[in-house]
Formats: sequence, structure tokens, C-alpha cells
Amino acid sequence: MPNSNCEQAIWELEVGSWELTRIHQEVRRTVRRHGLCPPGSRVLIGISGGSDSVALTLLLLDLAANNEFSVVSLAHLNHQLRPSAERDEAFCRDLAARHGLPIVVERVDVKEYGSSHGLSLEDAGRRVRYDFLGRAAAEADATRVAVGHTQDDQAETFLLKLMRGAGLTGLGGIYPRRGLIVRPLLDISRADLRAYLVGRGEAWMDDESNDDVENPRNRVRHVVLPELDRTARGATRPAIARAAALVREDGEWLDELSRGRFEALATVTPDGVELDAPALAAEPPPVVRRVLLEAMRRAAGGREVGLDHVEAARAILCGNGRGADVPGSRVELRRGKLVLVRQKGASK
Amino acid sequence: MPNSNCEQAIWELEVGSWELTRIHQEVRRTVRRHGLCPPGSRVLIGISGGSDSVALTLLLLDLAANNEFSVVSLAHLNHQLRPSAERDEAFCRDLAARHGLPIVVERVDVKEYGSSHGLSLEDAGRRVRYDFLGRAAAEADATRVAVGHTQDDQAETFLLKLMRGAGLTGLGGIYPRRGLIVRPLLDISRADLRAYLVGRGEAWMDDESNDDVENPRNRVRHVVLPELDRTARGATRPAIARAAALVREDGEWLDELSRGRFEALATVTPDGVELDAPALAAEPPPVVRRVLLEAMRRAAGGREVGLDHVEAARAILCGNGRGADVPGSRVELRRGKLVLVRQKGASK
Repeated sequence: MPNSNCEQAIWELEVGSWELTRIHQEVRRTVRRHGLCPPGSRVLIGISGGSDSVALTLLLLDLAANNEFSVVSLAHLNHQLRPSAERDEAFCRDLAARHGLPIVVERVDVKEYGSSHGLSLEDAGRRVRYDFLGRAAAEADATRVAVGHTQDDQAETFLLKLMRGAGLTGLGGIYPRRGLIVRPLLDISRADLRAYLVGRGEAWMDDESNDDVENPRNRVRHVVLPELDRTARGATRPAIARAAALVREDGEWLDELSRGRFEALATVTPDGVELDAPALAAEPPPVVRRVLLEAMRRAAGGREVGLDHVEAARAILCGNGRGADVPGSRVELRRGKLVLVRQKGASK
Repeated sequence: MPNSNCEQAIWELEVGSWELTRIHQEVRRTVRRHGLCPPGSRVLIGISGGSDSVALTLLLLDLAANNEFSVVSLAHLNHQLRPSAERDEAFCRDLAARHGLPIVVERVDVKEYGSSHGLSLEDAGRRVRYDFLGRAAAEADATRVAVGHTQDDQAETFLLKLMRGAGLTGLGGIYPRRGLIVRPLLDISRADLRAYLVGRGEAWMDDESNDDVENPRNRVRHVVLPELDRTARGATRPAIARAAALVREDGEWLDELSRGRFEALATVTPDGVELDAPALAAEPPPVVRRVLLEAMRRAAGGREVGLDHVEAARAILCGNGRGADVPGSRVELRRGKLVLVRQKGASK
């Protein structure tokens, strides 16, 4: 009964898995559950030299040796940010050589890129990295790009989004797969990965910038999560990461459903967007909110739409008030239509 | 266009609200958005003597004076737990007298109740309290029971559920309305409520047990949330509470949808539950999980069903493996049916 739902189910009974350790089995379960490396896929691995990506490389090589996909190349981006950048690059080149793998290396001045594009160092790093991985995949003729995000990253991202108020547009954390990018370690803790590396006698490069608790992600990692563990008297990352995955799946499906409802109920005009008001009001609140968000984004000309704007439009939809100004447009109810009229030069 | 969706929309444009302060308007917005005190409703207020419930009493009296519902009584439960219990009861009686309101008071030995029913002090307190409020409502002929949960409680509950791994069965925190119980302060911070009381020159009773950081909720309140605020460099409770409300609404609707799908796809037999496998497998994962959870709960005879059990059943549904033992039953695929066979005396 293979279908899109089953693609994501867990294989519980495995054949020929006796030679794999528990951590291999856990990675394979994630890989199979989300269809990360389907038969015949050619996987490129993004590697920084840190414990997560080194463990990813070794684990995927083991699974590939025994399995249906192949690891075709490593790819390392030298950010030129840290004093250790040269050491990290040399380490990655050596790892590739030891395993007979090609490695694509690029050097980018991330600081320069960030300031010339008006991006924070973190945002600049992310954009430069994924652009690079896309090019490296094309060069290596890879069909998948594996990156080392772990259960820890998942829990940290969820908490960061939660405290920043991302409830309307997706609290759900990191996707196991998005386009070419796949994340086989998303259910594995960093502690388990490090224990695995230590057990194999493998080294990795520490990233000293991860210790700076002025950075919010590091503060979540080194202060908030340990405090949650103390409160719960046990490890909380697995529970948080699991909740993040479930919330993400709920939200993804509601998003998809709502896109369909938007297509059915909306007419995009040169002046803005019109929605069939009685039909929209009959939908459940999670769908109404998402349809309104989509309509308002289309009329907003790049301005940010928030929960308050969505709720103001919901009130108009229900006949409470005659109109509301929202980013880039005005919302009104006109003869059975909820109309978003784009405002020329409207202020936010 | 009044319907169940619109009942929950925010009234943005208000008439005659000039005499109400911002905090009154915020409470009224929550009350109207969720239909907490519809026209003609008779509201009983549960009061402990703490800042939240004292502010609730004063705010609802103000709204009632100017509005369509009435406050018919206060209700105070003397838990007999703390040295301050007598003082708190006297304070509540006095508050009622000052406002010319009747007050229902009961004394219960919560510690005794907890140990004789095998419940934690917190669980015993909750059960005894809601039982009491139900009786008090009947006595006062009330149609609603208002309790003082705040935005802070909402954020704390969300974090507690998150760290305990409640992702499968509802992360969404506190409901604004459930049966008779309504929570008009759910969008208001405790800090704002205390500032309001101070501004009015009103006193409240401090609950010294709220300071014990060995209690997980208190630790979240006094240690974890301030640490999140430091990380985000600002107040995080509003964002967390808002996310909790949105996740709750998404989950509630998916639960409702899934109950409908369960009814359509399941046959409950004397031996267990049968599900139409191809039809179920065609549903999206959020619905599949909830239908399986419901089926497994029915066959589990009170045993707890977790995410791993649901995922094991999903794997069987997709043809991966011949069967799995789950709490109280065995899951198998038989001629187009996913069958949960109740196991007599099956171990957990």
C-alpha cells in the first residue's frame, strides 16, 4: 500500500540489520521514514568539521556500504570567519582523502557578504552555505544534499521560534527534507553522536563560536535547555524535538489544505484580492486564518503580516466593523465578498 | 454572518468603551472572542484570594456593570493546606461583603483526599477544586464559572507539556472555555493584573507555596521563563501564550476532523477495532495518527498509548511488518483491514 503517507511510516521490522549498531538503525529509520535517500540516490554531504557533520559522514558511509544509495562527495565551505577556518578545511580534506571521497571546497568572506547584503552574520552564513551546497551538488551530480542537523538543533530551533512568536507562520522547526536538502540526524542527539565518534576513535573540530552565550541559540543550548532538564529531572530535548515534528506535520497539512481553499475561494484582481465571504466564514478557524494570511500577504507588497492583522480581517469577515487597514491594503466586506484593496503608498 | 467561526472573532470596533481602561478592553476582547459570558449569563467566580482571582473579580464586576452578563456569586475553597488558609478565607469573605456578593465557601482536606485517592497534591487540588466549583455553580444557579488563569499560566502550561512530551495528545495549553469553566484573563499578563490592583489600591493574598522552585511549575515561572526573556531580550510569555492558542486551535480542529474519520473508517467489534486500511492510508499523517490513537485507546483498556505505538501501527498499515504488539492489543493487517485484536491479559 505505498503512498505519500506510507513513505513516512517507520519500518519496524528490519532484515539484515544485525551488523548495524543502534545509532545506525536510528539514522536508517529517519532516512526511510522520510524517504531521505531513496534507492539509487547520489548523496553529497555538507561538512563543517564539527562533530555532527563528521558523524553524519561516517554513518552515511556505513549505511551506503550496506544499502541502496551512494555517497558521492563531501562539500566544505570555508567561511573565513574564525581563526580555526584553515585548520577546519584541512581536517575536512583529510577526512575525504581517508575515505577516498572527492571534496568540493569553496572560500567565501561571509562577513563581507553579510554587510554588503544587509544581513546578520547568521543569515548571511545560512544563505551562502545553502547556495554553495546547491552548486556543489550540481558539480558532483548529486541528487541529495545531506546536512548534519540533530535533535538538539530541532529542539533549539523550536524554542527560538516559540519565544519569537512564530505561532502563525510555523512553529514546527526543521524539516527532515526540503528540496535537495536532507537531514538524516534529526532524531539523534548530539551526545549520542559524540559518543559514537569517541567509540570509533574519530576526532572532530570544535567550533569555539558555539560557546558564546551572547548568541541566542548558544544561550538556549547552554543555559535554557539544561534548566529545562533540571526542571523536568531528565532530558527534555527528545520530547521537544518530537513535539516540534508533530506540530510541523499538523501545520504542513493545514497549510496545504488552506492553499487549496484559497485557490477555490479567492479571486486575485489588479486591485487586490476578493474572497467568497460566506464560504470562508464556514471554514474552521485554522483554515480561515491561513487563507486570510495568504490573501493579505499577496496584497501586502512585501510588508509583514502578523496575527493582529489576520484577526482584524476575521472580525470584518464576521461583520464586526466596516473595514480595517492592514499592511498594504484595506479590508472591507462588500456584497458577500471580503475585499482586500491594495493601497497605493499605504503605510504599514 | 454569525457562525461558530465568527463567535471567536475579535471585535475590533467597539462602541461605548470610552469609560473602560485598556485592561478592561483586553478582558472584554477575550470574553467576546470566545463567547465566555454570553448575554444573560450568570457568572460565578472562583477566588483563592491571590492577585489573579481578585483582579478577575473586580474586572468582571466592572464589565458586568456596563454590560450584558451578571456576576452572581463568589466561591472559595479552603484547601486547609497552608498556614495562611484561614487568612485567605477571611480575605475572600470580606471582598464578597464589600461588593455585596454572596460567597460559597467549602473546606476540604486536600492532603487527605490526595493520599486516599492516590493522587499528587497538585492533581488532588485540581480535582477537588473543579468538583467544588461545579457544586457551587449549581447552588448559585450560575451558567458560567470564571477562573483566574492568565497568560503566564498559559505560557507555563505550554512549556510544562512541551518538556513532558505531550506532542501527540495536545500541546496546546489551557482552554479559554471548557464546559461551564471560562477563563477571561487568558490573554492578560500577571504583571498587568498586579499593576491594575495596585493602581486601584486593592490588596491580595500572596501564596507562599508559589515560591518553592522545587515544584516544576514554579521553577518554570521563576527560573526558565526569566531565562527565556533574557535570551530573547524581551518578554516571551505573550509569544508563547499566543503560539499555545494557535497550536491548540489547529489541534482541536484536527481532533474533530479525525473523530469524524474514525467514525467513518472504524468498526468496533467485541474483539477490538477494525479500520478500513486503504482509506485510512490515503488520509494525511496528522489524521492517520489521530485515528490510530483513538482506535488503540479503545483497545487498550486504560493503558497508555504513546507515539511509538502509533508509529508501529502506521508501519503495519503501510505493509511494513506483519504485526505489532501495542498496549492491550495486537495490530495486524488482514485482507484490507487494519485489525486491533484485544489481548486478554496482554502486558503493557
